[in-house]
Amino acid sequence: MTSFDLPAISGFRPPALPDVDVQGFWGDRIDAVAHRTAMILYDRCVAAGMLEQINPDIPVPPLRLPFHTRADGTPDTVNVQMFWDSDVAKVIETAAYALYRTPNPDLEAKTDEIIAMFCKLQQPDGYLNSWFIRMRPGERWTNLRDCHELYCAGHLMEAAVAYFQATGKRGLLDAMCRYADHIGSVFGPGPDQKPGYCGHEEIELALVRLGRVTGEQRYLDLARFFIDARGQKPHYFDIEAAARNEDPKRFRHDTYEYNQSHLPVREQTKVTGHAVRAMYLYSGMADVATEFGDDSLTDALKILWEDLTEKQMYVTGGIGPAASNEGFTDYYDLPNESAYAETCAAVGLAMWASRMLGRGPDGRFADVLEQALYNGALSGLSLDGSTFFYDNPLESRGGHHRWTWHRCPCCPPNIARTVASIGTYMYGVAADEIAVHLYNESTARLAVAGGSVTVEQKTSYPWDGHIDITLGLEKPLAFRLALRVPGWCDGASLAINGAAVECEIERGYLRIEREWQPGDAVTLDLPMQPYALHANPAVRADLGRAALARGPLIYCVEETDNAAGLHELVVDDTIATASTSVLSALNGGVAIDVPAHREDWQGHGNRLYDRQAPGRRPVTARFVPYHLWDNREPGEMLVWVRT
Amino acid sequence: MTSFDLPAISGFRPPALPDVDVQGFWGDRIDAVAHRTAMILYDRCVAAGMLEQINPDIPVPPLRLPFHTRADGTPDTVNVQMFWDSDVAKVIETAAYALYRTPNPDLEAKTDEIIAMFCKLQQPDGYLNSWFIRMRPGERWTNLRDCHELYCAGHLMEAAVAYFQATGKRGLLDAMCRYADHIGSVFGPGPDQKPGYCGHEEIELALVRLGRVTGEQRYLDLARFFIDARGQKPHYFDIEAAARNEDPKRFRHDTYEYNQSHLPVREQTKVTGHAVRAMYLYSGMADVATEFGDDSLTDALKILWEDLTEKQMYVTGGIGPAASNEGFTDYYDLPNESAYAETCAAVGLAMWASRMLGRGPDGRFADVLEQALYNGALSGLSLDGSTFFYDNPLESRGGHHRWTWHRCPCCPPNIARTVASIGTYMYGVAADEIAVHLYNESTARLAVAGGSVTVEQKTSYPWDGHIDITLGLEKPLAFRLALRVPGWCDGASLAINGAAVECEIERGYLRIEREWQPGDAVTLDLPMQPYALHANPAVRADLGRAALARGPLIYCVEETDNAAGLHELVVDDTIATASTSVLSALNGGVAIDVPAHREDWQGHGNRLYDRQAPGRRPVTARFVPYHLWDNREPGEMLVWVRT
Repeated sequence: MTSFDLPAISGFRPPALPDVDVQGFWGDRIDAVAHRTAMILYDRCVAAGMLEQINPDIPVPPLRLPFHTRADGTPDTVNVQMFWDSDVAKVIETAAYALYRTPNPDLEAKTDEIIAMFCKLQQPDGYLNSWFIRMRPGERWTNLRDCHELYCAGHLMEAAVAYFQATGKRGLLDAMCRYADHIGSVFGPGPDQKPGYCGHEEIELALVRLGRVTGEQRYLDLARFFIDARGQKPHYFDIEAAARNEDPKRFRHDTYEYNQSHLPVREQTKVTGHAVRAMYLYSGMADVATEFGDDSLTDALKILWEDLTEKQMYVTGGIGPAASNEGFTDYYDLPNESAYAETCAAVGLAMWASRMLGRGPDGRFADVLEQALYNGALSGLSLDGSTFFYDNPLESRGGHHRWTWHRCPCCPPNIARTVASIGTYMYGVAADEIAVHLYNESTARLAVAGGSVTVEQKTSYPWDGHIDITLGLEKPLAFRLALRVPGWCDGASLAINGAAVECEIERGYLRIEREWQPGDAVTLDLPMQPYALHANPAVRADLGRAALARGPLIYCVEETDNAAGLHELVVDDTIATASTSVLSALNGGVAIDVPAHREDWQGHGNRLYDRQAPGRRPVTARFVPYHLWDNREPGEMLVWVRT
Repeated sequence: MTSFDLPAISGFRPPALPDVDVQGFWGDRIDAVAHRTAMILYDRCVAAGMLEQINPDIPVPPLRLPFHTRADGTPDTVNVQMFWDSDVAKVIETAAYALYRTPNPDLEAKTDEIIAMFCKLQQPDGYLNSWFIRMRPGERWTNLRDCHELYCAGHLMEAAVAYFQATGKRGLLDAMCRYADHIGSVFGPGPDQKPGYCGHEEIELALVRLGRVTGEQRYLDLARFFIDARGQKPHYFDIEAAARNEDPKRFRHDTYEYNQSHLPVREQTKVTGHAVRAMYLYSGMADVATEFGDDSLTDALKILWEDLTEKQMYVTGGIGPAASNEGFTDYYDLPNESAYAETCAAVGLAMWASRMLGRGPDGRFADVLEQALYNGALSGLSLDGSTFFYDNPLESRGGHHRWTWHRCPCCPPNIARTVASIGTYMYGVAADEIAVHLYNESTARLAVAGGSVTVEQKTSYPWDGHIDITLGLEKPLAFRLALRVPGWCDGASLAINGAAVECEIERGYLRIEREWQPGDAVTLDLPMQPYALHANPAVRADLGRAALARGPLIYCVEETDNAAGLHELVVDDTIATASTSVLSALNGGVAIDVPAHREDWQGHGNRLYDRQAPGRRPVTARFVPYHLWDNREPGEMLVWVRT
């Protein structure tokens, strides 16, 4: 595969949340979020004291809150964090999607209460950041590099958009428009404006969301300004540090690669630094390219995409191997047991991939969108919606488990809001085309070609690759329907109204252009055989190993199915004789049973080294979807199994 | 293999240095030490300012010596170290062996000068430690736990014994006897004595050496006292810390497992803590068992031996995987690239193994003695004797190389003195038996059964397994000759005066009891085929890999022979077709060429993961002895190659 070209920017945009009703596989997960996770997030924010920082009606809390109760009931102290606004914002965003899914007066009242706190806290000029208003008055906009100020603003904007879309309530949306206008007055290219940008990207993509829902061009323009300003010389973070009488060189993370401001974005060629920051930046870049038809970002986006997906991505779609910088290290450095692979980073990759689809249908992006969503992101949430992974290793000796809360509680509301808004990732809509990026039992109401289409998917995907799509139309309508054929799929077949249709695959999509009739039935069959994936030998951690997959799901072995000592398992060369079975303990998930051997040191006594190779006895290895691991008995887990 | 029994303690003792002249393989290495290393060590001690701490004729140096010259010529500062006496002592010991090998008036004069400094520094009561006399007056014997005080004494005793044996000069020996007598007055079970012992073991084995050469029982008794006192309650290090007004709990290494004083030695069952300390302790325990016929130490020695060699030892005989404690971690935790495996620790293992042979011939100990000496220890010294490994990983990406000096310069003189005194490891002599533990071109003059025997070995071992032994006798003499048959050897054959002799192997030795005639010729053939070693699958780092070996030598692949990307090499199941060749660039070392494949990601383009397994192209992999790596072009190295 040589360097690829990208589709021309074609202005595909995602549907809004109310456009897609989701059932089936994702529907179950959304229900868990709506019925459990959303309230759990609220309760844990309260338990951690996070609302005390925001609430203007109580005294300013100390930097270390004395006694709070951990989710497990034990007492703890908590440091007030400068980025808590963002976490509370994601809790609001999750609540929004939950309320859209299922009325919940209690949750709605509590969320309204938080929103009221924020609105009351907002300053007359529109400024709104609880850390700087309450803990650090007078210091606003003095340390964009470290203090997450615009990042918090961005998440509040996303929450405002979501809450408005889900409930119709405009309070937070109006407040955030005022805040965005204030930000737009402070930052910009003008002589009295600051040419700054945030050390943690997010505001860029949030302004695009705000611009799309309000129709206000100025928010899009401000997003573009932040993208364009990043990394210009003289470096804003240097100037800012000097203004604080600090040595700019004494940056805790050594290099501005950490926050992707080492170069102007169009000159960046390597995915570096903090993984979540990188993904949010590239998401904003892709959004700006889509909104402005800005082809000057294309080369950078393409090179960075290749850099990430060809040299720095786990097979689960997890990214950022290192805990030290929560991010990237060297090419092909993808250790499995110590993988950081933060849930938020996989969510961020899904966000970037989905925004790259703004250019138009391209399986390259949709495949990675699916890979990250179904594996490295979804693993972050337990089946019952109550516990969370922060890091997502691909191997565990039995000590890695989901927790109830985290001092940096970014991941729980991030995976929750992503799951609960999965419908917005499923489609892309342009003037005369609907692209189906993800398959899942669902009903979407989409506007295309001057008409309106109801797209109904009947499928048990990802457990099965048969998809029945019915197009609901009031009258015949000519448009293009692009159906994704996943990269993992061989032998896809298409039928329309029962008649087989030959159709070429273009960039991973069947693009069917015709005048559609009301009730047209499109049937897509995506054969789903288990397959083994091998890694480039440059990835030392995966040498002589394979990862088993089926459809979009990466599989793993767990101790509970296979006994301890998973490294003794050696999968036979062929997995042609693999069989599948449905596991009720995993919500109907499909397990794969594969002929394997187990290495055996019996007969070698206590010898540490021996001329005799280990013995082997035949076993059947049971694989389960990676995202479902650690939902049963705790124990070892392994993705890359020896071959 | 089940738990093993040990030979009854049979009082086998090693020959003294002058008893064995070594040529051949080890002779070349001794010559490098004698002609180069010994003077290099002296020069680097001078360059590092180490003698300024000792020399009583110059002012006391500051704790940080301002400007000294690194061995590479660049300027540096050096912290004065409390353990430098021990390093200078090993430099003296190396010089002793070098002078015995080759007269060198310059080296002798310089060594005499250092010895004179020590003698002049010695206090009227016999006390002799440059750190406490010059840098910390008044603080002697107040912190045995951390300050290496008795450890330094022990190394000076070893140096004194060696210098006396090599040159006949008694100055240092007499000084150290006075010091030993002082130590014996301070430490002991008496009411006015301290029941203490050193945080870094060494004094125990040194006192045995001193006792053997002087014939003074009191030194052996003192050695036994230190062994017996270790780890008794109340804990001496607790008492001592309290006396310094320090909290005993605030020990930098957390637990007394670090210095093996967590339990009385007879109750210890797990090899823990700092690897060199552990080896020196166990060496002292074995010596005491031999000297006193003390069977109460047998169980502990046996259990600790099993613990180390069955769960915690690299295939190179390297030990102590972790840099953090320079020592042991968990069972089977033997990572290859990050292996610490300090040269001193492999030397210490050889010391312990050779002392276990004090019980009598037992291949279990001799095999490990050979494994550590020829691999993980000898790797510490470059072929030309000028540079040194401190840590000895079993895998390198190309960045690991021998250095000229180290701020903790323990390893260079330790491997140098070991190589230069290798003759003392070759034999064990009891009342009526001579045991040959190591084969090497050499001549030994040994006293046995009331007579005297000259044992002449003609062999190119370890490159070839044919050994001709001639016994020089003045008259016929009845004694037992025990010839080791290494554990790696299948099909050993024995002939006496040309006639094949059948002889059972007992504990790894052919024990031939007869009246030997002057000139009797014993021929031993140890077939030497390359073989592959496999690790217990509990060693995760070695899963699906094998180490190639031939005779006592563990082999590795180097980039210079095989090109970069050694992890792409996969050795075929059979190495039956391996061929050998002699490498002049490696001093005549034998290389092994093995049919292999090289994994190839060409045809996979830039894909990071692919359903197609990597391609394979046939190659010949060249293996060279591990101890010889990094003597040619720098590059990658790998011991455990994929199979």
